[in-house]
Amino acid sequence: MPESDPAKKWFQCTSAERAAFEAGVKLGALYHQFVGAAVNAESVDSLERAMEASLRTQPFVESAEVRLDRKALRPGPRPYDESSLTGEMIDASVRIRYGESLVHGRLRYVPELGYPLMSFEVGPSGP
Amino acid sequence: MPESDPAKKWFQCTSAERAAFEAGVKLGALYHQFVGAAVNAESVDSLERAMEASLRTQPFVESAEVRLDRKALRPGPRPYDESSLTGEMIDASVRIRYGESLVHGRLRYVPELGYPLMSFEVGPSGP
Amino acid sequence: MPESDPAKKWFQCTSAERAAFEAGVKLGALYHQFVGAAVNAESVDSLERAMEASLRTQPFVESAEVRLDRKALRPGPRPYDESSLTGEMIDASVRIRYGESLVHGRLRYVPELGYPLMSFEVGPSGP
Amino acid sequence: MPESDPAKKWFQCTSAERAAFEAGVKLGALYHQFVGAAVNAESVDSLERAMEASLRTQPFVESAEVRLDRKALRPGPRPYDESSLTGEMIDASVRIRYGESLVHGRLRYVPELGYPLMSFEVGPSGP
Repeated sequence: MPESDPAKKWFQCTSAERAAFEAGVKLGALYHQFVGAAVNAESVDSLERAMEASLRTQPFVESAEVRLDRKALRPGPRPYDESSLTGEMIDASVRIRYGESLVHGRLRYVPELGYPLMSFEVGPSGP
Repeated sequence: MPESDPAKKWFQCTSAERAAFEAGVKLGALYHQFVGAAVNAESVDSLERAMEASLRTQPFVESAEVRLDRKALRPGPRPYDESSLTGEMIDASVRIRYGESLVHGRLRYVPELGYPLMSFEVGPSGP
Repeated sequence: MPESDPAKKWFQCTSAERAAFEAGVKLGALYHQFVGAAVNAESVDSLERAMEASLRTQPFVESAEVRLDRKALRPGPRPYDESSLTGEMIDASVRIRYGESLVHGRLRYVPELGYPLMSFEVGPSGP
Repeated sequence: MPESDPAKKWFQCTSAERAAFEAGVKLGALYHQFVGAAVNAESVDSLERAMEASLRTQPFVESAEVRLDRKALRPGPRPYDESSLTGEMIDASVRIRYGESLVHGRLRYVPELGYPLMSFEVGPSGP
């Protein structure tokens, strides 16, 4: 069953436009909340879990997955192994359902562009 | 003239859906980048300017305005006057143009809901 | 054994001053990295774990504990239950060892002051 | 005249240790608040001003300067010119006075270390 929307009357748009907007909010939030966080090989799992859980907390999120690039972490013993999370290290997917619309948002580094891209696809309608 | 889009091929959607997505990205980013920042009566102007400039930096943003609620700042002489920026203090507007679509995004506290709402309106088409 | 310090030559100070500085860095970072994050009853555990792990990642941290105030979370079913992490909700402890000095840093809301206080104690010297 | 300290009783330490702690708090906060912010050649001035003002807002800060590395910004016309602020781009100085102690904190990229270093010097005592 679609989630209820306490703010419905503040929006005049299609459900696909709304789902696209919500996907944008989630990806913009994820990037700017977590980029800069201290991370190393030991803490990377818990940071992934927290980023996913933070996405799932938010309205209209059906599922979320976050994968951080271990190869971008500094190797070496403490205290040489501390990295700062960058946008380039993040691969995040979030499924938004709003009414009958489904949008799949994605944040990942695109080599061809040379930067982390936030994008989305409008999925098939249906319950 | 609409801004060019180096990432065009990664999107299959209407221009209104794309503009809605971009509005969401900008508002989610604004909130999560700046909430928590130290602010007082002397620094509030420069924080507003930086938040606006940061919005305007981003793709497809035509204009942006940010207003922070001075009444929510702690009064009193230093060092009693330090506040931490909250979402409730932000009133932000951002105009996104993507192709022929115009979207007006807004973040502001809505008393009826009891929380800061991110919303948008799809504007009239046209150049 | 005390952790090695690749940056030693950039500091002229006592080991207690250095440990106090490092405690300050960790608490300032924790607050400003995570305040604003979306959190609810389901995600609060993973956010605590990630905040602790992020502290432990950093140089000279011997141990860290983070406790977030569940009573400050919005109750209610989705999507009414989303909160934004505030400084008032955080109770964090971090033990820093630098050379023979031990410093215990703390961030927690102090009702008497009306704000979240970052403080520290210099512990007993010794290995 | 030294700033008053409403939280004095929560600290047992020398004034130099306290000043070092406060310098750490300010630098840790600066880094984790602003890293990730969208910035380009047009917005970099206002971001510097806001970062400085945010430092000056905080207790015991006598002065602050922030310089962001323009050479690290992406060149090119919009929308190709958006960068995300990294720690490597920041050169920040902050002077802390606590009681009779003066501490000069600094955040800047150190090529020899390969990362942005937060450090401090204890200055000459005196009013």
